[in-house]
Amino acid sequence: MLQGALRSGTAHRRCVFEVFARRLPEGRRYGVVAGTGRLLDALEAFRFGPAELELLERAGLDRATVEAVSGYRFTGDIWGYGEGETYVPGSPLLVVEGTFAEAVLLETLILSILNFDSAVASAASRMTCASSGRPCIEMGSRRAHEQAAVAAARAAYISGFATTSNLEASRRYGVPSAGTSAHAFTLLHDDEESAFRAQVAALGPGTTLLVDTYDVMRGVRRAVAAAGTSLGAVRLDSGDLITQAKEVRELLDSLGATETKILVTSDLDEYALAAMAAAPVDGYGVGTSLVTGSGAPTAGLVYKLTARARSLDPGAPLEPVAKASAGKPSRGGRKWAARRYDEQGVARQEVIGLGSQPPADEPGRPLLRHLVRQGEVIGREPLDAARSRHGESLGELPPHARQLSKGEAALETVYV
Amino acid sequence: MLQGALRSGTAHRRCVFEVFARRLPEGRRYGVVAGTGRLLDALEAFRFGPAELELLERAGLDRATVEAVSGYRFTGDIWGYGEGETYVPGSPLLVVEGTFAEAVLLETLILSILNFDSAVASAASRMTCASSGRPCIEMGSRRAHEQAAVAAARAAYISGFATTSNLEASRRYGVPSAGTSAHAFTLLHDDEESAFRAQVAALGPGTTLLVDTYDVMRGVRRAVAAAGTSLGAVRLDSGDLITQAKEVRELLDSLGATETKILVTSDLDEYALAAMAAAPVDGYGVGTSLVTGSGAPTAGLVYKLTARARSLDPGAPLEPVAKASAGKPSRGGRKWAARRYDEQGVARQEVIGLGSQPPADEPGRPLLRHLVRQGEVIGREPLDAARSRHGESLGELPPHARQLSKGEAALETVYV
Repeated sequence: MLQGALRSGTAHRRCVFEVFARRLPEGRRYGVVAGTGRLLDALEAFRFGPAELELLERAGLDRATVEAVSGYRFTGDIWGYGEGETYVPGSPLLVVEGTFAEAVLLETLILSILNFDSAVASAASRMTCASSGRPCIEMGSRRAHEQAAVAAARAAYISGFATTSNLEASRRYGVPSAGTSAHAFTLLHDDEESAFRAQVAALGPGTTLLVDTYDVMRGVRRAVAAAGTSLGAVRLDSGDLITQAKEVRELLDSLGATETKILVTSDLDEYALAAMAAAPVDGYGVGTSLVTGSGAPTAGLVYKLTARARSLDPGAPLEPVAKASAGKPSRGGRKWAARRYDEQGVARQEVIGLGSQPPADEPGRPLLRHLVRQGEVIGREPLDAARSRHGESLGELPPHARQLSKGEAALETVYV
Repeated sequence: MLQGALRSGTAHRRCVFEVFARRLPEGRRYGVVAGTGRLLDALEAFRFGPAELELLERAGLDRATVEAVSGYRFTGDIWGYGEGETYVPGSPLLVVEGTFAEAVLLETLILSILNFDSAVASAASRMTCASSGRPCIEMGSRRAHEQAAVAAARAAYISGFATTSNLEASRRYGVPSAGTSAHAFTLLHDDEESAFRAQVAALGPGTTLLVDTYDVMRGVRRAVAAAGTSLGAVRLDSGDLITQAKEVRELLDSLGATETKILVTSDLDEYALAAMAAAPVDGYGVGTSLVTGSGAPTAGLVYKLTARARSLDPGAPLEPVAKASAGKPSRGGRKWAARRYDEQGVARQEVIGLGSQPPADEPGRPLLRHLVRQGEVIGREPLDAARSRHGESLGELPPHARQLSKGEAALETVYV
């Protein structure tokens, strides 16, 4: 595309690309924007080095095209929904303004990051809604690509997960880490008692002991025998978790370990968490379903050209453009977005209008933040800011948004 | 776990860990092993640098543990199914032998790579089965994490995809690349004619023109007008693809463009490909459903301790171990595996036995290759070897293995 546009003289036309979702995954009420912080880092590092240029030459690109990308640096502007913000179909999640040559090359980078991270954050948000306020530990690294796993831990934290078992996410992004031992640790030792004693010796009685390698109730007795009544937690990873949690709670209490917590894992998803609301459980470890988006492993975001200048004249207006493909509508034009509330302060509408700014009398909360100005990243923020924003954004949605049952989007999308 | 094992003196016990699937994704007949080549590269690079060690210290690990990992290098042995091989539940896909300290640290690395790559390769294999021999282009990068996308292109190629639109996969792994233009390219230009002329000027008449931005039939006429009857291909990306393909074929033929191919894209999965078997389509571009495993975004592989020595004595035997957790059975012991055939040469059984080698009279094809010997990678092979192996392994399976309908595993798992 770049080679064709350079040839036709259109490569340097000013363009606006927009990221949005045509629809939410089936029955979901809202999505969660995530990946913005990672995207800003990746954008700064997005360069074509000698190895990449050599490949482009071998692939047959012409000299002008290879030269154009050899000095690539994005010099345009980007606005986006704040990381952690909730969204609905049509929300203009990212608006990229620059020349075609600069902006078109970012499509895969932008969509890869936002689609994966938002899919995980959207699933994570449903899980923290369903967890009855109990802390959730992200434990899904083993079920995702090795780098995607790190991004997943970050996205889960934005949507309210307490901790991650991925230490690299802790190192890279400061996500608090937590973990427990695996069955292999118990099996390595001559018997369960030795394993529990070894773990307590190494990590203190506040550790979490995995008690289902052989027999759960015997495991609990051995755990308390090894750590004493100040044992931090036991982990259940198999069987009928609800019944088991009750029995284990009773046993722990009868042994005097009334402060010992019960942590539950085992292919949990948001529905399993909701089903355990009444069980005496103190925390959840969630893995596979989280990192695979709980049935929606991509957010399905697209990156579409919505406006472009018809000439290279710097003053040429940005004209709306849109394809007419059957069943895949898109709306042309540069857009602003705001969230409108009812009298009780509950969010009701995603209002989307044409232009770079909402009109002065727009009553809603503006949703687009300036992230990149003339190529310079200005929208960086601490990860905890995204986490806080998510809590606030979710709290403003109508109560039915937090239901797990299938339904319509929580906000009406209104074009004005 | 490492800190506990160092404390209890068990960290250097010789261990065997095994990677296997408890089950296939619902209704699938077989899985495809992928990621092995990436894993061997990652294993060689798996080291703890100053930044990682600092994090471990901050996380509160003791001095002995931090020292143990600071010089980490895997010095054990690994055997595995050849990359591209088909598998069924219970197949011992990877066997890792080493000290507990060395082998336990590899769990997340091994599972992340094999789970993601195998999920994509397994989906890709169903798609190439369903594509009636027509070439499939991998186009899913935008719907996967930015690094996972590169791995997905590689995995798809193993399972018979012809090309990828991911240039980094081409650079890194030599996967042949291909691509088409997007709607943005057409919309950038003043009209469809200008866009088509620009693309043909830049890439020659053999290029693929996207014809559904406005009106498909008018688009086809304009495409042939711009490129002549030697136009390489047109791409359809929306609407009723089967009906449209017939109309477009007739139109192309009537315009004299009888050699021009029809490429189809638009959220295709293996069922959509199968449904187009009778349509005049020459190739498919597949994206989202491929990189998300077509409903099974992880292969669900686990890494379990199956045997360990009871002492540090180098001659101590490896004793089988297995947890008893409800509903999550595992079988202890170091295992071999072979594939047995009937008189017609059709694969019928996955035979799995205890020990490091099949007995001399085992009639089946041995499935485990020696990949790492005393820490040295010896199992590296060109990517095309994995692709060839997949073709052969799939060709040996019973014909019903290639059906898309839900059913049982294509091979019986037999423990001997």
